[in-house]
Amino acid sequence: MFTQIEGGVCAPLGFRANGVHCGIRKNKTKRDLALILADVRCAAACVYTTTLVKGAPILVTKEHVQDGYAQAVIVNSGNANTCNADGVEIAEKMCFLVEQKTGIPASDVLVASTGVIGQPLSLEPIAGGMNALAAGLGNGAANSAAAAEAIMTTDTYKKEIAISFDLGGKQCKMGAIAKGVGMINPNMATLLMFVTTDVAISPAMLQKALSQDVRSSLNMLSVDGDTSTNDTFCVLASGKAGNKCIEREGKAFSTFKKALHAVTSAMCRLLARDGEGATRLIECKVRGANTLKDARIAAKAVVNSSLLKAAIFGADANWGRVLCALGYSGAKLDPDTIDVNFRSRAGILPVCKAGKGIYFSEDFAKVVLSEEEIDIDITVGEGKFEATAWGCDLTYDYVKINGDYRT
Amino acid sequence: MFTQIEGGVCAPLGFRANGVHCGIRKNKTKRDLALILADVRCAAACVYTTTLVKGAPILVTKEHVQDGYAQAVIVNSGNANTCNADGVEIAEKMCFLVEQKTGIPASDVLVASTGVIGQPLSLEPIAGGMNALAAGLGNGAANSAAAAEAIMTTDTYKKEIAISFDLGGKQCKMGAIAKGVGMINPNMATLLMFVTTDVAISPAMLQKALSQDVRSSLNMLSVDGDTSTNDTFCVLASGKAGNKCIEREGKAFSTFKKALHAVTSAMCRLLARDGEGATRLIECKVRGANTLKDARIAAKAVVNSSLLKAAIFGADANWGRVLCALGYSGAKLDPDTIDVNFRSRAGILPVCKAGKGIYFSEDFAKVVLSEEEIDIDITVGEGKFEATAWGCDLTYDYVKINGDYRT
Repeated sequence: MFTQIEGGVCAPLGFRANGVHCGIRKNKTKRDLALILADVRCAAACVYTTTLVKGAPILVTKEHVQDGYAQAVIVNSGNANTCNADGVEIAEKMCFLVEQKTGIPASDVLVASTGVIGQPLSLEPIAGGMNALAAGLGNGAANSAAAAEAIMTTDTYKKEIAISFDLGGKQCKMGAIAKGVGMINPNMATLLMFVTTDVAISPAMLQKALSQDVRSSLNMLSVDGDTSTNDTFCVLASGKAGNKCIEREGKAFSTFKKALHAVTSAMCRLLARDGEGATRLIECKVRGANTLKDARIAAKAVVNSSLLKAAIFGADANWGRVLCALGYSGAKLDPDTIDVNFRSRAGILPVCKAGKGIYFSEDFAKVVLSEEEIDIDITVGEGKFEATAWGCDLTYDYVKINGDYRT
Repeated sequence: MFTQIEGGVCAPLGFRANGVHCGIRKNKTKRDLALILADVRCAAACVYTTTLVKGAPILVTKEHVQDGYAQAVIVNSGNANTCNADGVEIAEKMCFLVEQKTGIPASDVLVASTGVIGQPLSLEPIAGGMNALAAGLGNGAANSAAAAEAIMTTDTYKKEIAISFDLGGKQCKMGAIAKGVGMINPNMATLLMFVTTDVAISPAMLQKALSQDVRSSLNMLSVDGDTSTNDTFCVLASGKAGNKCIEREGKAFSTFKKALHAVTSAMCRLLARDGEGATRLIECKVRGANTLKDARIAAKAVVNSSLLKAAIFGADANWGRVLCALGYSGAKLDPDTIDVNFRSRAGILPVCKAGKGIYFSEDFAKVVLSEEEIDIDITVGEGKFEATAWGCDLTYDYVKINGDYRT
């Protein structure tokens, strides 16, 4: 139904992008300023971190997207522009720099920042980088890649996805770039993620699709249980695909939501796999819950457990920690009905049946758990609801990266 | 008001203890079975983990303490006796072994286990060790120390405290042993902790004191945010001090509660300092909150943040992560009224004023944060409420210990 294509945020019709090094970061080989630009004013929707300590760019973006439309997104890495006295002023000026350079009104420009909290962000390098940023705008795969690189912080690889799909006989496209990879908690839209699409959809339906989708995508992703101050997830829809504009529930909206989830869930896997210091991707599926909420909080508790994450790093089939996490998750479940299987490319390892341990070969366990992608399949009862959460292992490198991030 | 004394759980009148190696653990130099025995039937009270996946010993202890009295506690380390088909049967038999050896009815014996989840616990080594365990019972400091050693898991040192204090003209004593040091989350009584006292107090008032105390002691302690299946905190009160039995609120009850908090808060510091892999103790005090609840959840969020814990390990004054944790804690607070100071024996380092960063010397910051005990003093407003939480840094060794705990 969905075909993966090249091009990231530039794959859909009507979008250009670029990313440059402007000098916020000292390392001159690392791009630190990105711009995504639409040829037309787009329907736009966002979700943000729910924390009280919010980055200044979020306040500005909220205001600019309030009318449901936007045409550009400017993003810097290397500095979160959070807890700074002049934060809002700087964020507004970033939007104004885009207006000066492109003619798009600042009120149609969204802005996001990621990096260290509490260090003043100087406008100077950003202003100085605008010429190169605008000059290099284009709709090729390399342009999206440059933008994806420019928003990376501790990410070890850039995150890009694009798909094409049919919507009422029209070929539509959707693309995304995102950055992780620490301070990621499954309580809300996490990190930065920007999605473009050429689908025609009303702002209200776009917001609805986005708000529903995060519950089963970004809200189910955990790296370390810390929630960022700057989490922002934006979608811009150019309408250039020529489909009949989606303005209500129905088959087209349903297809759109599925496309969005294909993009966001694939991005969750990319993000979890690159979690700070991670060596393994963990995908936890909980089945048989009595409510969707129970399935979700149970799955999230498992991928969020430091102890389980450390065990997975050690390829140790310490399933007691899965039971432990399920027990304290807050999900309503009967411990005596819990089955747990560890699974990977190497095979399936049943470890717990009806809440009790069962015999398994430690040698085979090591083989199964030494793969790069570990699935934890859990059945908690006879209920109809299931949920999937994504996480990664907890490693020495997580500690190393975060013990000396700022200096 | 309280004088620290020697003797741990054997310091109060009427208690004997011992700890031996019986063979649950393979390492013959590590004690793995402890017994605390009172000369008389004691008023007894407990609090437990609130997780749904509970260790079998908790079910048995709950039943045995239901009448408000108990006379002995048997504890093994090396195996949690959790998620085992015969768990309750084994826990009951452990109590019966105490009855056989000492004459104390099994129904007055409490039982606790700590160690790996989901591995069958054989009664054989425990039965085999009972002779030596009973023969070595005594009321000296060495006896409490042996018991404290026998309940250790990944603890690097034993945890013992004892104090003496005056209660209505009578000298009273209170002692405690405890074990940590991973799977510790500030949502409930965590870990194993056993307190003895010779104060005369009714079971109801003892339970009341205990239930109130944990909110500001064990519930404010975090090592890794995982909640154990076996957390149990018991108090036995022998009444041998000769004070007028505490049967209602009043001055004597208030003094008793203060004594209990002196013991439990000191124990929290000992436990946090020895958190798995920890190199530093973190004490976070939040002042100026509008409610006690807000103060508590704010302080807990800070000591529970993996990112902040890693920064403290790296002696990195990354105060943005303190703001970040306060923001997502759920506490009601105004980010623009937050002040943060880092503090240690080496000095005070103000880093944030009214929610914004202030200049500080990075060199001095390294000096302050390189001490073994780091205080994070936070003011969140003009409110009257304050709370203290304890935690530790997140280190390579936490990952190492937990990557290969089971095998």
